[in-house]
Amino acid sequence: MMERVVIVGTGLIGASVGLALRRAGFAGTLIGIDMNAEEAAEAKRMGAVDRIVAPATGERALEVCATADVVVLAVPVMAIMGWIDKLAPVLAPQTLVTDAGSTKLAIWKLARASFLGVGRARFLPGHPMAGKESGGAGLAEAKLFDGAMWLFTPLDEALTELEVEWRAWVTKFGCRTMDLDAARHDRICAWVSHLPQMVATAMAALYEDEFAREPGMADDFRAIGGRALREMTRLGASPYTMWRDVAQTNTEPIAATIFALEQRLAHLRENLKTPGLREEFVKANRFRRER
Amino acid sequence: MMERVVIVGTGLIGASVGLALRRAGFAGTLIGIDMNAEEAAEAKRMGAVDRIVAPATGERALEVCATADVVVLAVPVMAIMGWIDKLAPVLAPQTLVTDAGSTKLAIWKLARASFLGVGRARFLPGHPMAGKESGGAGLAEAKLFDGAMWLFTPLDEALTELEVEWRAWVTKFGCRTMDLDAARHDRICAWVSHLPQMVATAMAALYEDEFAREPGMADDFRAIGGRALREMTRLGASPYTMWRDVAQTNTEPIAATIFALEQRLAHLRENLKTPGLREEFVKANRFRRER
Repeated sequence: MMERVVIVGTGLIGASVGLALRRAGFAGTLIGIDMNAEEAAEAKRMGAVDRIVAPATGERALEVCATADVVVLAVPVMAIMGWIDKLAPVLAPQTLVTDAGSTKLAIWKLARASFLGVGRARFLPGHPMAGKESGGAGLAEAKLFDGAMWLFTPLDEALTELEVEWRAWVTKFGCRTMDLDAARHDRICAWVSHLPQMVATAMAALYEDEFAREPGMADDFRAIGGRALREMTRLGASPYTMWRDVAQTNTEPIAATIFALEQRLAHLRENLKTPGLREEFVKANRFRRER
Repeated sequence: MMERVVIVGTGLIGASVGLALRRAGFAGTLIGIDMNAEEAAEAKRMGAVDRIVAPATGERALEVCATADVVVLAVPVMAIMGWIDKLAPVLAPQTLVTDAGSTKLAIWKLARASFLGVGRARFLPGHPMAGKESGGAGLAEAKLFDGAMWLFTPLDEALTELEVEWRAWVTKFGCRTMDLDAARHDRICAWVSHLPQMVATAMAALYEDEFAREPGMADDFRAIGGRALREMTRLGASPYTMWRDVAQTNTEPIAATIFALEQRLAHLRENLKTPGLREEFVKANRFRRER
């Protein structure tokens, strides 16, 4: 039975997990660990966790994790990998560790090497397809995952009781769930999540430079730009710290999607006055109709 | 005094102009002209126009326009240019013609040649920065322009009484207005409107091809893709017929913005693992903060 949950990283995702657990009826203990004492205090103030350990100093944090039934790692991918290294030797075998990292293959490989084996805790790699362009506990919501997809890339097929229970809580958050291969996860997420992010960042950075080029341009651009401009650059507000780790751990698939889009844009640019433009619009229309 | 308005093109924009005029208190006559009898009938049914002339056959349509105080051309850019050619010789000098075309330089040049001069009607090039990814009278709204920017690229500085009145109605729609040079209009709109459209079209067309590549991929992509995917491809639903004319009449500025983005994406792709990625995120963050 899951009675004691430690959430490592009480930012947007971690604090939302705490709030979602409470909303779904979880009556056990929630403990938050964060490097940032203010984030942790905010998460506690919101009721996302009952107690906090912050700033998270090594020894104390590991001791607290060792008391948990479930440890939820809700920090950027490289930090998750750091926690896997530290937690694997100290957790009891009945513990379940799960995570909310945006890429899964690097985590899956490391967790397989660190956790698979007799006497080791269980690790269930996970990834909620939810978030906001800005982070922080202050933006956390009990309903953040409602209607979202929560992906899992399991290390093996057998399920422990605690894994079954954790998956049931995720379903109670309002999530659909899907199990898939970690490499396939990263390839699909490069298309549906990482490419949109990189395009929004590139566009926002391009506009930032372009607006500075002529006096008065910035004001006119902003006055004239409407929903299309806002929408296509919304993700430009996303934090580097999180996306650096995504780029580090999913470099090849992301580079492939960006390159494919560069070629597509060049094709469209070269066909602004030819029937090739029509073909692109027809295909794009079809994509939107089928959603 | 504006008492009789003829709206040429009773699709999304034209029908919304009719509804917005009524909402703002216009008590005169509204006549709709459309090539598509169904679109025109829908606009009449919604109360966007009182009477319709459809399908718009040449002679009859011109006769009706000749009875108007104000003619609003709310069709794609190339069609607007066709109407300028036909209307200039037949309208009385006290008539005001205005338009809602997405590009302005080609229209401005043609209107200057056709309308400027003794005995000719007035032409005020205009462009409401409002719309939806799908067209049609059925989606028209009295509030479509509420809070939007309505741009003008006047042929000369002097204003007739009817121009002053038309601008006042536009303000009553809830619009801010701005006058600017037609070439500058097209250059700014290439950045804030046409580039977002072309990127969304390229992304949606790319996904449409990519999804078909492996069995089962389409379902997984759609199940996993969330707000980012939807948002970055929303404009992929936009109709080719309208955008063909935008591409035809603003080719060089659009090509320049697409090329700039291609280069930016290549830079980002080559720097997925370097501090260059950080610089792009910092710039993009700054762009979003300053909005």
